[in-house]
Amino acid sequence: MRESELVERLVAIGWRGSRSVILGPGDDAAVLRGGLVLSTDLAVEGVHFRLDWISAEEAGFRAGAAALSDLAAMGATPEGMLVSLAVPGDGSVAADIQRGIRSAGDRVAASIIGGDVSRSPGPVVVDVVVAGRARPPVRRSGAVAGHEVWVSGALGGSAAALEAWSAGARPDALARARFAQPPDRVPLGTALASARIARSMIDTSDGLVADARRIAAASGVRIRIVEGRVPAHPGTGGDLNLALQGGEDYELMFTAPARAEDRILAIAREVSVPLTRIGTVEEGTGVVLEDAQGRRTTPGPGGFDHFADPGSGRAP
Amino acid sequence: MRESELVERLVAIGWRGSRSVILGPGDDAAVLRGGLVLSTDLAVEGVHFRLDWISAEEAGFRAGAAALSDLAAMGATPEGMLVSLAVPGDGSVAADIQRGIRSAGDRVAASIIGGDVSRSPGPVVVDVVVAGRARPPVRRSGAVAGHEVWVSGALGGSAAALEAWSAGARPDALARARFAQPPDRVPLGTALASARIARSMIDTSDGLVADARRIAAASGVRIRIVEGRVPAHPGTGGDLNLALQGGEDYELMFTAPARAEDRILAIAREVSVPLTRIGTVEEGTGVVLEDAQGRRTTPGPGGFDHFADPGSGRAP
Repeated sequence: MRESELVERLVAIGWRGSRSVILGPGDDAAVLRGGLVLSTDLAVEGVHFRLDWISAEEAGFRAGAAALSDLAAMGATPEGMLVSLAVPGDGSVAADIQRGIRSAGDRVAASIIGGDVSRSPGPVVVDVVVAGRARPPVRRSGAVAGHEVWVSGALGGSAAALEAWSAGARPDALARARFAQPPDRVPLGTALASARIARSMIDTSDGLVADARRIAAASGVRIRIVEGRVPAHPGTGGDLNLALQGGEDYELMFTAPARAEDRILAIAREVSVPLTRIGTVEEGTGVVLEDAQGRRTTPGPGGFDHFADPGSGRAP
Repeated sequence: MRESELVERLVAIGWRGSRSVILGPGDDAAVLRGGLVLSTDLAVEGVHFRLDWISAEEAGFRAGAAALSDLAAMGATPEGMLVSLAVPGDGSVAADIQRGIRSAGDRVAASIIGGDVSRSPGPVVVDVVVAGRARPPVRRSGAVAGHEVWVSGALGGSAAALEAWSAGARPDALARARFAQPPDRVPLGTALASARIARSMIDTSDGLVADARRIAAASGVRIRIVEGRVPAHPGTGGDLNLALQGGEDYELMFTAPARAEDRILAIAREVSVPLTRIGTVEEGTGVVLEDAQGRRTTPGPGGFDHFADPGSGRAP
């Protein structure tokens, strides 16, 4: 079973609708009455990270930053985090992980307000739940044909580090830093939301193409990405495929009307995050890539799959 | 390191205070502005349950009910759940677990509004986050000397099942059911909270004595428990120690003024849950047990410790 099929099956089992829920499963986060935004992010040792690649504190930072990235993608301001830890041995590694998560929370002034801890007879498991507030939350479903597609920062660095580790090599320092320290895009997300500029938004956790496909599906549109415009992270060594399909960059992709360009670039300066216009929203379905000659291709499935055969994918 | 010490250490690392947080770590749940109550509960295969004892669906039900029990203990009405699952193999067990959690949510009309799923190279790990609303939430810190101590249902059944399994025996059917299907005390908790009868409340997840000690510590009082009044579950075979120290009953213990007795018994009838007056709140610290002759003893530490040597404790 692919991860995406399994997720669909779990949503079908678990979701029954509710009057207290404004937005249920299927976006970056759920929304309760009062604009309360909730999301959870699981990190499993040996699947999402390895402790011979990064320290326990870095693993915690990464898990915390990844969870907070979902709030950024909703345009929500974080209010608190809950942390559940399953750890082997006497539990001492838990303190290092907690310290890392706390550091990620410090960037956005979110404390750890609760949690649970258990012995694990297996790997370290970290589950970080984030709660924030958004008025209004930005969904994946608001992309409109004719609008433009933007992405923050640079892509593929995290995947480049994983590729090196998987090949038994030492990753480029910038790529490693990108994997261990996902960026904080909360100031960008909240600015784009409160100015009502971003009409749809998602964080690039599974790869630009896979996440663009989600915007396309949720909005009933096609996303056209101009390959030459995609900002590749320096750690990729110019490998465009890493930038297009590599996951866990935790940048924001959003769509906005063309007339918003000046305001978008002003926000980019204000929050000191580079923003790049990488394509357009069209009528249609799915994602198309356009090369320098204007030739269009439909990218393959790609993206991270944590249930894929560990030897076959890019995921660790 | 004991579980309680580890939890204290993690709280000290993670909690920095926050203006958006009404109640931080240290109670059954955290509370954000707007009365939003959040709690998380972790269940690890081989630590909290075993799949040769109960089915995956029962394990899910148990994890969901345990998490919802924390909302009941705050007097909160559930609004939604988030579920993170790490599962071995192809992930198919995840659907059974999700179905069990959904059934626990159905009892209180709470859908699963989000989640995450991953392959696990080790045991099944289930983290259930519950969100609810309470105005006002009932804390652990409101016990007042002179008030009375009450407990719902019957105690020790879950521990009796664990004891049997740990000895390689087949547990009594009632005890097994008690372990696999924790009761729903949300109607009781919300009734006690909205009538402002319960001044302090906790769910008996770690054993009556251990949880009474938490009320005592949070409120700066002593809890006196009259042994002969403690309602032992039929599955205990009359073993008082199981009722006093056995964990994972997920009943509610609360304190209230003596004059509230009639209203408390009316609520018991209304929600069809037996309530028993088991002791009093006194000036002092800690917990004392009183036997039929009026002799007082101070109970040992007891309670569940998921970091204890698996061979040495009552925890599985």
